Amino acid sequence: MDKFWLYLSIGASILSIGVALYLFFWVKKQPEGSPKAKEVASWIRDGSRTYLKRLYRTLILVVVILGFLIAIVFSFDLSKISTSQVAVVPINGLVMSVSFILGALCSAIAGYLGMSVAVEANVRTATAANESINKAFRLSFYAGSVMGLAMVGLAVFGMSMIFLITKDAESILGFSFGASTLALLAKAGGGIYTKTADIAADLVGKVEVGIPEDDPRNPAVVADNVGDNVGDVAGMGADIFDSYVAAVVAVMILGASSARLGLNYVVLPLIICSLGILASLIGIQFVRVGKNGKPGPALNRGTVITTISFAVMVSAFVLATSVNLGVIWATITGLGAGVIIGITSDYFTSDDRKPVFRTAEVSQSGAAINIITGFSYGLASIVPSVIGIAVATLLAYYLAEVNGLAGIYGIGISAVGMLSISGMIVSADAYGPIVDNARGIAEMSGMDHHVIETTDVLDAAGNTAKAITKGFSISAAALTVLALFAAYAEVVTASGLQVNMSLREPIVVVGILLGLMTPPLFSALTMLSVTENAFAMIEEIRRQFRERPGILAGTETPDYDACVDMAAKGSLSSLLWPALIAVGLPLLIGFVLGPNALGGFLGGSIFTGVIFALFMANGGGLWDNAKKYIEAGNFGGPGSDAHKASVVGDTVGDPFKDTAGPSLNTLITVMSLVASLFAPLIAAFHLF
Amino acid sequence: MDKFWLYLSIGASILSIGVALYLFFWVKKQPEGSPKAKEVASWIRDGSRTYLKRLYRTLILVVVILGFLIAIVFSFDLSKISTSQVAVVPINGLVMSVSFILGALCSAIAGYLGMSVAVEANVRTATAANESINKAFRLSFYAGSVMGLAMVGLAVFGMSMIFLITKDAESILGFSFGASTLALLAKAGGGIYTKTADIAADLVGKVEVGIPEDDPRNPAVVADNVGDNVGDVAGMGADIFDSYVAAVVAVMILGASSARLGLNYVVLPLIICSLGILASLIGIQFVRVGKNGKPGPALNRGTVITTISFAVMVSAFVLATSVNLGVIWATITGLGAGVIIGITSDYFTSDDRKPVFRTAEVSQSGAAINIITGFSYGLASIVPSVIGIAVATLLAYYLAEVNGLAGIYGIGISAVGMLSISGMIVSADAYGPIVDNARGIAEMSGMDHHVIETTDVLDAAGNTAKAITKGFSISAAALTVLALFAAYAEVVTASGLQVNMSLREPIVVVGILLGLMTPPLFSALTMLSVTENAFAMIEEIRRQFRERPGILAGTETPDYDACVDMAAKGSLSSLLWPALIAVGLPLLIGFVLGPNALGGFLGGSIFTGVIFALFMANGGGLWDNAKKYIEAGNFGGPGSDAHKASVVGDTVGDPFKDTAGPSLNTLITVMSLVASLFAPLIAAFHLF
Repeated sequence: MDKFWLYLSIGASILSIGVALYLFFWVKKQPEGSPKAKEVASWIRDGSRTYLKRLYRTLILVVVILGFLIAIVFSFDLSKISTSQVAVVPINGLVMSVSFILGALCSAIAGYLGMSVAVEANVRTATAANESINKAFRLSFYAGSVMGLAMVGLAVFGMSMIFLITKDAESILGFSFGASTLALLAKAGGGIYTKTADIAADLVGKVEVGIPEDDPRNPAVVADNVGDNVGDVAGMGADIFDSYVAAVVAVMILGASSARLGLNYVVLPLIICSLGILASLIGIQFVRVGKNGKPGPALNRGTVITTISFAVMVSAFVLATSVNLGVIWATITGLGAGVIIGITSDYFTSDDRKPVFRTAEVSQSGAAINIITGFSYGLASIVPSVIGIAVATLLAYYLAEVNGLAGIYGIGISAVGMLSISGMIVSADAYGPIVDNARGIAEMSGMDHHVIETTDVLDAAGNTAKAITKGFSISAAALTVLALFAAYAEVVTASGLQVNMSLREPIVVVGILLGLMTPPLFSALTMLSVTENAFAMIEEIRRQFRERPGILAGTETPDYDACVDMAAKGSLSSLLWPALIAVGLPLLIGFVLGPNALGGFLGGSIFTGVIFALFMANGGGLWDNAKKYIEAGNFGGPGSDAHKASVVGDTVGDPFKDTAGPSLNTLITVMSLVASLFAPLIAAFHLF
Repeated sequence: MDKFWLYLSIGASILSIGVALYLFFWVKKQPEGSPKAKEVASWIRDGSRTYLKRLYRTLILVVVILGFLIAIVFSFDLSKISTSQVAVVPINGLVMSVSFILGALCSAIAGYLGMSVAVEANVRTATAANESINKAFRLSFYAGSVMGLAMVGLAVFGMSMIFLITKDAESILGFSFGASTLALLAKAGGGIYTKTADIAADLVGKVEVGIPEDDPRNPAVVADNVGDNVGDVAGMGADIFDSYVAAVVAVMILGASSARLGLNYVVLPLIICSLGILASLIGIQFVRVGKNGKPGPALNRGTVITTISFAVMVSAFVLATSVNLGVIWATITGLGAGVIIGITSDYFTSDDRKPVFRTAEVSQSGAAINIITGFSYGLASIVPSVIGIAVATLLAYYLAEVNGLAGIYGIGISAVGMLSISGMIVSADAYGPIVDNARGIAEMSGMDHHVIETTDVLDAAGNTAKAITKGFSISAAALTVLALFAAYAEVVTASGLQVNMSLREPIVVVGILLGLMTPPLFSALTMLSVTENAFAMIEEIRRQFRERPGILAGTETPDYDACVDMAAKGSLSSLLWPALIAVGLPLLIGFVLGPNALGGFLGGSIFTGVIFALFMANGGGLWDNAKKYIEAGNFGGPGSDAHKASVVGDTVGDPFKDTAGPSLNTLITVMSLVASLFAPLIAAFHLF
């Protein structure tokens, strides 16, 4: 039975990859438009490719080093460590190492495909927007789907193949760790890149010299548009890929280790993912707008249909096979938690609700009051989301237990359930930066005003999708790491160690304390990189304006490459410390303070990781929309003192929502995977 | 033996209260100065008294309701609940209720004394500053000592008397809860008051109309000065009183319940506190400056001498009696952690270090970059402090265990050790707002410029002391709540319930998740109250300037009372939700989700409570000093764009460091006490 299931999921994954490739070539066949538009697009394309090339070079270095380490470490068979007879089994090391490299590779291919199509689709969307909104919308959304479908397809394909060959869930940990390593570099690096360019472009362009957004006279304008691709397309895709794989592997391990379950339950998460792929393929069909249709509702329709068909398919599958009924409840619980958190994000970031309205209103008293108010609402926004996660955890657990399934397996399934519809979610999300770029190209290449208006409409829908995706990815990550945490405990127990993770154990509390400080530290490092790089880029922009007055007059082309290069180099060289923390700190804690302290450490990092991720995503979105609300003519409108104050809030929120916040998911996933992967070694060797 | 110890501590406490009263009358005998100065001082005094009267009226209401509830609940003897024979013992309820009322009363008396002397000392300090800095310093520091000594004296006196009469450590929980209830109202209310007035006065006064700090034409200037007294004197005193008592009671309960210890270990924390009182009395003698002496080093000298004499006395006492050697190590560990956290606060808030320097430097790129940078350094500042707390926890635990003492008792003793020198710490801290007020009075009553210069020198030393106290009070609170957490578990166990607080239990994780969100929610509510009240007060100030042009011309006196009243009413009516959360949420969680979930909840609230308290205290101090660094003439100096940007940062930091941050200590203490107090009831009745 489980073999059949495996083939089924391999089939679904190949279908998904196939559709992605078909759409990829379809997008490339669409007309590119005027030579000027093509030129502008080529700047963005080249900038994005340069960054990606640099990123992958860094990645190869990291993967080679880590892959080598993994190959060595896993060549020792630690199961006999107690008898002091350590056997060397090189094939084990090789398998884990290859699995690790494959994970990074699959994620990289999905990211590369997604970004390649994005930098082709942006100019074509702008050109199509000249004709009609529904053509432009279809083009940009299908381009986004390339990433969404490639990602889920490659993930399921990779994991299924590894399991088919090794028949061992733990070897997929390597795959997951590879994907996470890439995600950490892509998400944090891309996040630093995009906000460096965005802040620098805005502060000098809009605030100092008073030229509009996307003005071609701004030397940082290309870097800003490149940033949308490297941060929001490639980075975000890698992030969800990471959670997606991690959730599956956690549940597979829990399925393998829990005595109550059979082998089918190891393969089950892959089946659920396959159903999610099919549901996404269905949902994508319904994302269309008519001539005067609205893109926002179209995207929502796609998500709703995907969710419903997915729930129906899972239920039908469970009822048709001998699978435990608890799986249905756990899946629905996960989807429900996603909805609650989506609604919360919406409440705290919509301009017809109190938080945004009040933040905009108090902007009349200056930037400081805007910041304090937005900050406070951001903190308050944690509450409903955390309650949502807590309720989902409890429900998934007890509904699974009631049906005779291990409760923790239920929590894992709810995470998998939530993430299964990633195909659709990522498609809607990747659409955002594509239309954002299309707007930039339209502006820079001097297209008609109605093109810019059309792309603005498309862009607004993209922002909402982005906010929902963030809530979704945070709650999915929260449930995923809870499952990973349980998987870690299972692996330690399997190593023959007594696991004690009570809050009454001082070593566990110490682990928790150290874990708690890690996400804030990581946020601080990434945000300081943004301000440091932005500070340098601001100087560069000012220098260009000062030394070449022709730029502002419009008679001279600015040196775009200088800013593109600065952002790329700055963001990648800033990754050293964050990456060391993510990989090194769990190992340090584990080998020095032992597996129980490491358990506490994982717990602590999950705690503040989730809290800060929620706060930063919602706070950032809130400030952004408070500014937009004022720009729409309220409280004095554009140019008023309230507007200036709200621009400060928006700029503060930028690295919150696009750099530090979203990287935290990846951080806690990477740390949990490192812990699980090295758990047998840590169980065997630790100081305390 | 333990009786003798009790009498000893009662003796020390009476000595402390006696010295406090002596200094109180000594301060009152000093010359008040010119009629104008007396008039200005009377405004501040009346405003402070009005607020305190209102606060105590609110308090009486709360105390009566809670006292009544406690009297009823504790009249039931729950120890026989399992046999279904619930005996009613009214005397038990009465004792707990009286203990509760006494706790609130003692803290209120200490706060009242401290504030009464502060509002007398401010004008006298200004007058003395006309003569010499050493006279002014002595006067203001001795006035601060009134609060420090009264506080520790009343706390030790109250606890010793209750224990002498009831011979039951748990009955002191009532005393501690009373003190915490007052602290919650005084600290959060005072924090909202002071920052409402401060922000409103600055934003309209300095930023909009461009008049200097403490200018008598500003309608909010009196409210601002009143705020220093109600927030920084009364609020801070109540906060430390709260931690001080809570640490002692936690250790007494641990001493009573741990089978390895004798009765002496129940009374031991009181003895340690007495030694701390004596050490503080010694240290205070050394706080003097010569004619051209510097007040900062003088304050530090007092702290160092107090710390050393305290360590020596504790060691001598332990060696001379049969007390376990682990007590010495635990005490020294606590003091050491305090030092580390003090040094950290100093590093992150000193203008000759990178964080403040960089924050000031990037202010040249605008307010947003200033905010992001300060925010990031604030997050990074968590790291060394958390490591300090973690190391102290581990050391205190293992050094106690090694010596045959229960490890958790060691953690408690390290908290008590740290807090024992509160007499000196609070004296140095209460000195700050007194000289701040003296400066205000000097400015408002038009004293000579050299008086203002002298008070500026005194003020700078006060700011450093304040930063150190904050680090001190947060780390003390962290260790205290860890001990309280253990005490809670002991009380639950004593009720015959199996305590399971493992991170692998979903109900515990859910408790933790709900706990995690509470400190951010509490911070959000208090800060939103500040912005809401400040927004209203800004309107009031603008109205006065608009309707009565004579105010700005200096020919008309503004309506100070209007602002004083607004701040008082606003801050007290804002307390409803924070207070309900602090008392109601633990009860809700306990009665619905059960004692294990409540344990998780306490843990979770401690986790984010400590993290946010550290971040907010250090971040706020950092922004404040970055502004001062620019005002000292760097990066363009006063009036430059960098300066304006840094003012935004400073204003954002104000409610961080003086409203939300310091209230979190109290919040987590109150919640832990509520849990311990109601633990037997919760153990008997809970839904899940």
